Amino acid sequence: VATDDTGDQAELLAAVTELGAALRELVAVSVTTTVGPAELRAAAAQAREAAAGLGVSRRSRDQLPVLDDPVRFRRVYNPVSGIGSAVAPPLVIRRVDGGVEAEATLGPPYEGSPSYVHGGMSALLLDQVLSAAAHSAGLWGMTGRLELDYRRPVPLETALLLRAAVADSRGRRVTVAGSIALAEAPDHALVQARGMWVAPRPERVEEYFSAITDASGRPSRPHRPDDTAAGVDGA
Amino acid sequence: VATDDTGDQAELLAAVTELGAALRELVAVSVTTTVGPAELRAAAAQAREAAAGLGVSRRSRDQLPVLDDPVRFRRVYNPVSGIGSAVAPPLVIRRVDGGVEAEATLGPPYEGSPSYVHGGMSALLLDQVLSAAAHSAGLWGMTGRLELDYRRPVPLETALLLRAAVADSRGRRVTVAGSIALAEAPDHALVQARGMWVAPRPERVEEYFSAITDASGRPSRPHRPDDTAAGVDGA
Repeated sequence: VATDDTGDQAELLAAVTELGAALRELVAVSVTTTVGPAELRAAAAQAREAAAGLGVSRRSRDQLPVLDDPVRFRRVYNPVSGIGSAVAPPLVIRRVDGGVEAEATLGPPYEGSPSYVHGGMSALLLDQVLSAAAHSAGLWGMTGRLELDYRRPVPLETALLLRAAVADSRGRRVTVAGSIALAEAPDHALVQARGMWVAPRPERVEEYFSAITDASGRPSRPHRPDDTAAGVDGA
Repeated sequence: VATDDTGDQAELLAAVTELGAALRELVAVSVTTTVGPAELRAAAAQAREAAAGLGVSRRSRDQLPVLDDPVRFRRVYNPVSGIGSAVAPPLVIRRVDGGVEAEATLGPPYEGSPSYVHGGMSALLLDQVLSAAAHSAGLWGMTGRLELDYRRPVPLETALLLRAAVADSRGRRVTVAGSIALAEAPDHALVQARGMWVAPRPERVEEYFSAITDASGRPSRPHRPDDTAAGVDGA
């Protein structure tokens, strides 16, 4: 928890983190369990009970979560890096010299061919990591193009290293390259990616995001990290 | 439930389907709830309780689920199309003249930029749909290359149509093209995809999948649908 969170926000973030971890574990065990129908139905009933408790108060699609931080680019429910997302591993993406990197070990929920990571899941993770590399270089954009070369299958339950760096930046467009490798052999890419991110023109930003507000109801638009206007990141 | 399921399998499939739906709803409400820390922690405790009940008996990574069907290419926990996967929307992919298509409406768990589908999530879904088009043409392979062009953002909570068809097939390689569009404007692609799937050489199939067995312990290898050997699909 960052030091400039208020106490209330820190407590909320801790609870969101706890729920994210519990749901992630539940999802993982749900795809590997061999219990019978009665036990599956009992778990489904417990899940519905938990959902009912959470469902008493919900935000609209256009209102950002209270914990999302436009300045620090924290999006707690992002499906790749969100600490509160049960869909996300979650990836912890950190800045390094010249770009970003993240470690991950992916379990059975991410399986494509037996015992390997789904090819599209590799694309999902790389889209986020390449986007983060653009952010870390002070750029913002939405995915314009993404190219993936799959050289070897990516094994489940094995420590992976994802890396990305900006290759080129011109005006509203930034080109980023990255890879997934085994953590023990980080320079032998299993999957290579190259993509282009495009910052929409201001009139497009207005068209796409005119309804979006932060949790307090104030308009909020995506923007480059070095802009002074309030905004949020995206991928 | 297909008519050639045994009664026990039909009952199990119904329970797996019920749990998948309950978990999907729980994940969706968990990213939009605005309840406080105490309620979040209570839901986390319920989730851990459900996980404990499911965790009393689990398969290993190398053993396929009992419901996975090598002949009908059913993979119940696939992260895009698996009826039992809380990560999956799930996509129901059907054969049509010349290829495959699927309808989907994606909620907040799949968000990238505010109110739009994550760019990498579009890639994940398209990888699966393109792979299914290859299958439906009697081909099998693992993703070799995937190229995505993002023309317009894909909105959340809006009916989408995904389509794919085989463009070319030579030896072990098949090229597939597809798109995501609004269901109400199916010929105006928001995202276009093109990819190449490669059936590994037999010695590679053995290397990659030597440990994989079906639920009864019998070796199981991915294969083309028209092969007579037992096998499973993958993406």
